[in-house]
Amino acid sequence: MNAKDLIKKSKADFGDEIELFSKKIYTGVLMPSHNNIITLKLKNGYNIGVKIDGSSKIRVIKKKQEKTGILRNIKHLKGRPVISLISTGGTIASYVDYRTGAVHPALTAEEIAFSVPELTEKYNVKAKVLFSILSEDMKAGHWKKLAKEIAKELNSGADAVVIPHGTDTMGYTSAAVSFMLKNLTAPVILAGSQRSSDRPSSDASMNLLSSAKLAETDLAEVVVVMHGETSDTYSLIHRGTRVRKMHSSKRDAFKTINGKPIGRIDETITFFQDYRKKSNDKTIVNDRMEEKVALIYFFPGLIPEFFDYILKNNKGVVIAGTGLGHVSSDLIEIIRNAKIPIVMTSQCLNGRVNMNVYSTGRDLLSAGVIPVEDMLPETAWVKLMYVLGQTTKMEEIRKMMTENMVGEISPRTMVD
Amino acid sequence: MNAKDLIKKSKADFGDEIELFSKKIYTGVLMPSHNNIITLKLKNGYNIGVKIDGSSKIRVIKKKQEKTGILRNIKHLKGRPVISLISTGGTIASYVDYRTGAVHPALTAEEIAFSVPELTEKYNVKAKVLFSILSEDMKAGHWKKLAKEIAKELNSGADAVVIPHGTDTMGYTSAAVSFMLKNLTAPVILAGSQRSSDRPSSDASMNLLSSAKLAETDLAEVVVVMHGETSDTYSLIHRGTRVRKMHSSKRDAFKTINGKPIGRIDETITFFQDYRKKSNDKTIVNDRMEEKVALIYFFPGLIPEFFDYILKNNKGVVIAGTGLGHVSSDLIEIIRNAKIPIVMTSQCLNGRVNMNVYSTGRDLLSAGVIPVEDMLPETAWVKLMYVLGQTTKMEEIRKMMTENMVGEISPRTMVD
Repeated sequence: MNAKDLIKKSKADFGDEIELFSKKIYTGVLMPSHNNIITLKLKNGYNIGVKIDGSSKIRVIKKKQEKTGILRNIKHLKGRPVISLISTGGTIASYVDYRTGAVHPALTAEEIAFSVPELTEKYNVKAKVLFSILSEDMKAGHWKKLAKEIAKELNSGADAVVIPHGTDTMGYTSAAVSFMLKNLTAPVILAGSQRSSDRPSSDASMNLLSSAKLAETDLAEVVVVMHGETSDTYSLIHRGTRVRKMHSSKRDAFKTINGKPIGRIDETITFFQDYRKKSNDKTIVNDRMEEKVALIYFFPGLIPEFFDYILKNNKGVVIAGTGLGHVSSDLIEIIRNAKIPIVMTSQCLNGRVNMNVYSTGRDLLSAGVIPVEDMLPETAWVKLMYVLGQTTKMEEIRKMMTENMVGEISPRTMVD
Repeated sequence: MNAKDLIKKSKADFGDEIELFSKKIYTGVLMPSHNNIITLKLKNGYNIGVKIDGSSKIRVIKKKQEKTGILRNIKHLKGRPVISLISTGGTIASYVDYRTGAVHPALTAEEIAFSVPELTEKYNVKAKVLFSILSEDMKAGHWKKLAKEIAKELNSGADAVVIPHGTDTMGYTSAAVSFMLKNLTAPVILAGSQRSSDRPSSDASMNLLSSAKLAETDLAEVVVVMHGETSDTYSLIHRGTRVRKMHSSKRDAFKTINGKPIGRIDETITFFQDYRKKSNDKTIVNDRMEEKVALIYFFPGLIPEFFDYILKNNKGVVIAGTGLGHVSSDLIEIIRNAKIPIVMTSQCLNGRVNMNVYSTGRDLLSAGVIPVEDMLPETAWVKLMYVLGQTTKMEEIRKMMTENMVGEISPRTMVD
């Protein structure tokens, strides 16, 4: 017996409270189910997968309240903030296939909201599934759609836009929408989880609830909210242009690089540094981006032929060089002859590029390389796409790349 | 007046104790000098650069003792360990050009030894300049020469081989010689510095002295010894296949990733974990390496055409994928059709790849990708070059890549 068939036969819908008869009797909320496993969210918040067969039965105890993508009418909870949830997919909006153990993206706003009933109890939640993809498939086209959707929600009065997003490329997307959106009227928060929301150990719930809390502050930046440590004690607010996934599986995988997080969220919100405040203007989107830009981490086998191919097939290149911003000297002439902007960051990730210290750095500077201080390689790549969407004049490109726009470059401090 | 001319005229040599008359009188050891600046090491260990003109004069007070690359006869200090210094260049073996402020590689063994007189007082030091290059120019050919030179020194009875090396690619080189050398009879230590040795704040001295101390232990691995924190309190011993430069300028830039350092060195040596002990056999070198291997950090703009070019022009590719080891799904078919080994690591650097969790990972596995646990992308790249030097059979490549050889893969531990 297939779960979908049994659900259909029983006239049940995801979100209904049901009784499942299958060897034992189970009571809970019906979750998206696949193959021969019915997934139930139990009263205690845990999910279970129950194997069914031809004799299994479902009885609907209570139908769920809504069927549309809008989970609550935004006037429902008087005086409470409006949270616009724009789901893009990823683990935070995914389910475990209990047959294979694999995780798949969720398909409906309900699937996401199920994981955080507390959210709809405290806030007026508007939810929408914009994409249902794993974040490794997010591209510039997705960022543009997302930026427009965010602006629409902000300009419709949302007190916060919360974006469930896969963690794999969340840092790239947060950087992209950071550059594309101007005059934010409320916080834009990307939140992910490192455990799927139907697993007991999921961090989805805490990160979404923490995100929503920002609606009650005057912060109006693009940020990433993720666990601050492995246990459920607090979340950290990371600036969207400064954050990088630094662990493949830990809950506190996201780190602010070259700076402190903006703040932390537990019972209250503590800010560690200045942030951008709400704008009184309308939020606008500038989604012009040049997509033919490459990001290359230098390695000692990066031969001139390969590098030449990269330069010839792109309109701009960001290099994550070694140390203070170096590549092997056999690449310098190719760089000198290139007609496209070549931007230097460091594969050390931490620290600043400084190309005046060593002869290689100085040669690279004279060949025209644009050093971008302490910007992350991934952020520099996104920014170069954005900048090349605005201008093709080299001097303007250089100026825009080396000037701080949205917190991606911090001022120099004197060190030794 | 040019420094070189003045030195020649005065019959002075680098290493001589001299008096320099130039407006004031300075006394110190003559260091390599360039342009119109004479560099002196003062009694207090600090260096100064003195501008000279036509009226400047040098008087030699005391000639230096040796003129050859061998700084001490290895029988000189009875019963003391023999340290073989094989210099490759880099900041640890470099000088500041006081005219431009730029740093240049040193050219002689003397230039290196000058920075650490304590070394020659405590040990029998043999020194040799193998290369004088900045480490961004180190390639596979250099690793091979270096590995042979190390083996020669070990087989000639060295109690430690210490390799001053530029920090930019020190992690690549340490991984390379880790794979190429078998049956080490003594420790092989790469040491760098983040400040050139003629600057007062140099970390060269402490790292070289700490390295030499390992001669008195039974450790016989390839390791990197660098500052453990920003001040001169202790150095850390990092396994050669586990270490990555994680800051562009700090002294404690080097971190052991996915594990603890092997130990720390201050007055004494404290080991934090097991290590390989001295071999009684002769050290052998296996320097067969396939150089046509690429290391690619995935980014959301890595288009199929570019990826296809990479696969077609290499004999093997290491991907630093997102998260648990992913790339966008539009690359999977290209991978499936590739005839070369494609190895997966994580650009998170920390944590393990696990390609059974998400559908993309499972698809990549079925397409033939080789996941290499918690190996660093850079180490996996070096290892794939080494493995392809040994075999071209896919199943042997897979087996060798996924088995731990020299500490590059740690056993799985259970996590949630």
